[in-house]
Amino acid sequence: MRAIGIDIGGTKIAAALVDETGAIERRLKRKTPAGDGPAIVDAVVDLVTELAGGDTSIPAGVAAPGFIDLAQSTVYYAPNINWRHEPLREVLSRRLPGVHITIDNDANAAGWAEFRFGAAREQHDMTLLTLGTGVGGAIVTGGQLLRGGFGAGGEIGHLRLVPQGLPCGCGQRGCLEQYGSGRALLRMANEIADAGGIGQNLAAVREAQGALDGDIVGALIQEDDPGALAALRELGGWIGQACASLSAVLDPELFVFGGGVSAAGETLLEPIREAFHAHLPARGFHPEPDFVIATLGNDAGMVGAADLARTALGAVPGVAG
Amino acid sequence: MRAIGIDIGGTKIAAALVDETGAIERRLKRKTPAGDGPAIVDAVVDLVTELAGGDTSIPAGVAAPGFIDLAQSTVYYAPNINWRHEPLREVLSRRLPGVHITIDNDANAAGWAEFRFGAAREQHDMTLLTLGTGVGGAIVTGGQLLRGGFGAGGEIGHLRLVPQGLPCGCGQRGCLEQYGSGRALLRMANEIADAGGIGQNLAAVREAQGALDGDIVGALIQEDDPGALAALRELGGWIGQACASLSAVLDPELFVFGGGVSAAGETLLEPIREAFHAHLPARGFHPEPDFVIATLGNDAGMVGAADLARTALGAVPGVAG
Repeated sequence: MRAIGIDIGGTKIAAALVDETGAIERRLKRKTPAGDGPAIVDAVVDLVTELAGGDTSIPAGVAAPGFIDLAQSTVYYAPNINWRHEPLREVLSRRLPGVHITIDNDANAAGWAEFRFGAAREQHDMTLLTLGTGVGGAIVTGGQLLRGGFGAGGEIGHLRLVPQGLPCGCGQRGCLEQYGSGRALLRMANEIADAGGIGQNLAAVREAQGALDGDIVGALIQEDDPGALAALRELGGWIGQACASLSAVLDPELFVFGGGVSAAGETLLEPIREAFHAHLPARGFHPEPDFVIATLGNDAGMVGAADLARTALGAVPGVAG
Repeated sequence: MRAIGIDIGGTKIAAALVDETGAIERRLKRKTPAGDGPAIVDAVVDLVTELAGGDTSIPAGVAAPGFIDLAQSTVYYAPNINWRHEPLREVLSRRLPGVHITIDNDANAAGWAEFRFGAAREQHDMTLLTLGTGVGGAIVTGGQLLRGGFGAGGEIGHLRLVPQGLPCGCGQRGCLEQYGSGRALLRMANEIADAGGIGQNLAAVREAQGALDGDIVGALIQEDDPGALAALRELGGWIGQACASLSAVLDPELFVFGGGVSAAGETLLEPIREAFHAHLPARGFHPEPDFVIATLGNDAGMVGAADLARTALGAVPGVAG
């Protein structure tokens, strides 16, 4: 059975018609009318209508940032869209009569895609961290997506790493998001630039470009710039420490890393593994997980949303979503 | 279907014949031959034989401390029994021909019992913390025990709370176990006794008794001794902080607290709830879990082990273990 996946991102809404193997048959996108809930609903309705071509038997899954309830129906809170207790499934169902709709958290959708069709397709237990502007997460355990009791599970970016640490947008301090995200990498790169020494080239580039951004730091990492590499190692060190705690709790077979920062590939994984091994409780007394980069890139959200919609219909044999 | 549950503890091996509702029909116990693996196997074989009364169709579940593999078969490591890669299921099966045997981690068995028959029997997502000498844990999510990719999931006592914190028996520093266990409570009580002020009575009792122990501190808590209550509040504060991080990752409906320290009841739950609310990421944007004391006490391990053995046989409708 084919399914439609929609990923509502901060800048664009990506949509695709996805087959049972996770392959994309057709894709569309729209600019996100940021902060304008009704306009976002209009865009989603248009995208589903166009991709379905009148076939209401094709289910549609919508991935959105924020907290989604366990019934895959209501958005408790989506920070960038101004949705609070938005009954999104009901709203969309009214506009798309006959179409089976499900709503999921965007990181959970991406994680599900990596589990079903991507980096973790041979595993039954995996933990995904998406290292973008923030840090998102998804947990698959025993072949099932861990949604939690209220649908808000897998918010790994808000695992506390440092008591009284850096303030976080969630209202707390010391969350992984402040030590393992793209934004954290930029902060570390700027600190290294300020410090001179191996940061001299970073400082010079910053001076020339006006400011550092993710693309610049990413390019410097590719060029083996010592300051940029030091920032990435610092970031990887924190992520590896978080994975050691997560391993005690979740014991995944595989940690998968997605998001913009994961473009650094093995250069990122190396310090993660090193810190993980240095901080793993009871090391040597049980098997250890592997660390890999996600394979589906930006398509993961919509491919996962489509498959979760299919799974919710009971249309995926042997998989309970 | 009835099942036999065996709980190999540090001081005693508890065994019971348990019916489908979790009720104990008959119970037996033996002193644990600590550190003597073959003698422990002999004791388990005797207990199963006596409880089964010759009926090999009754499955038997054995709960043991340490890391158990995902196949519920091999003990990777049991710190107090000197087992390393012990094929316990095979060893027991050879001695008990025809009996279906499963092996599980003791905290996982206790958590499963609370989920099926105890404090969390109305929930589908719960996290158990056993606050004994150490801190154990068990996670049930979507109605399934979270075993992890290698069987070592739910080791919540080794969530890191404090970077470079107190040394832990797992080889790391700053683990919850060092801030939320019965042993941690004793350390805090001694520190408060040393500090004078509200600790004066604690210090006097320590002087009179030679040393503080869990029973003494527990009794002082019941008597509202200000020093003992301060120690319990400190402990609860750390546990609540850990629950806030766990909530971001696991989002349980219910946190359940077992083990000796949980005898303090509501006096323990109050500081846990308070610290949880103060440290919960994105508070107010999604539903929040409840906090309760476990109801099955010391029976939880054997009741859970029995039910997990039954579940492994596929004999519990609607429940996948």
